[in-house]
Amino acid sequence: MTISMHQASVPLFRRQLGALLAWLDKAEAHATARKFDPNNYLQLRLAPDMLPFVSQIRIASDAAKGCVARLAGVEPPKFEDNEATLAELRERVRKTLAYLDSVPADAVDGSEGRDIVIPMRPPREPVQMKGLFFLQHWALPNFYFHVTTAYALLRHAGVELGKGDFLAVG
Amino acid sequence: MTISMHQASVPLFRRQLGALLAWLDKAEAHATARKFDPNNYLQLRLAPDMLPFVSQIRIASDAAKGCVARLAGVEPPKFEDNEATLAELRERVRKTLAYLDSVPADAVDGSEGRDIVIPMRPPREPVQMKGLFFLQHWALPNFYFHVTTAYALLRHAGVELGKGDFLAVG
Repeated sequence: MTISMHQASVPLFRRQLGALLAWLDKAEAHATARKFDPNNYLQLRLAPDMLPFVSQIRIASDAAKGCVARLAGVEPPKFEDNEATLAELRERVRKTLAYLDSVPADAVDGSEGRDIVIPMRPPREPVQMKGLFFLQHWALPNFYFHVTTAYALLRHAGVELGKGDFLAVG
Repeated sequence: MTISMHQASVPLFRRQLGALLAWLDKAEAHATARKFDPNNYLQLRLAPDMLPFVSQIRIASDAAKGCVARLAGVEPPKFEDNEATLAELRERVRKTLAYLDSVPADAVDGSEGRDIVIPMRPPREPVQMKGLFFLQHWALPNFYFHVTTAYALLRHAGVELGKGDFLAVG
């Protein structure tokens, strides 16, 4: 028995984005209890030259949908990047999950050797790699990087989260 | 073509732990330039009820060696958890890499359906799951969680790191 490319990608994104939705609920409850605007989370940063919370969630969403689309050989859906509230961020995560569900498993399977081209912010040239390398050494680490940074920002802001909320297993 | 369990685990841990070694070098250079003791990093925390930097690295190491050992059906090597310097943390990461290299690929391959038992801190009962689920929904997210938190602590401390240092591709 071995693992297919769909098995090695979509279920990981799904579980973690589902966990993230639950963190957003806890963040909102924390804001309500402390009587501050829950949208204040969106501009929090761990360092002044790191991206804010809102961007961490957007990029986690992009990493998940971009990975699955590129493996399937289709253009990833573009989202507007205009979320201004926690509710809109939640909606973006839900749209990302719906997109992951919409891509047929057999379109992703067999993509180990597919040539993947990742556009970079100009003036950097696009980066090219094979499907398996892209999944394992680019998309997954990048996705977990942004999800964990979002988690760290909420923890730093006092939201009551623990490892069980991160792994969300069982 | 599909992916084997060894392919889906060891190369990811190897690349990320290699990247981490380079962050530790940058952290040391930053301390030297700013004239502070590089061992000061070890007790940094993002929140007073989060684990310090030294623990983030130890648990990342445990997650990697524990994953590969359990998939291979052997007892993970126990490290002392007594690192008191940045140099000792670096040594632990190197020992972890050497362990990953010592486990034969064919001992890990075929472990998708193996019963994995994860000891928890008492009074919690051990958790049991199948090899593939353990790799994808426990070991990998847990590993990236601690590595990213270590990265966030260094960034928060002013060490000059960017996404390129995290992904360390190309």
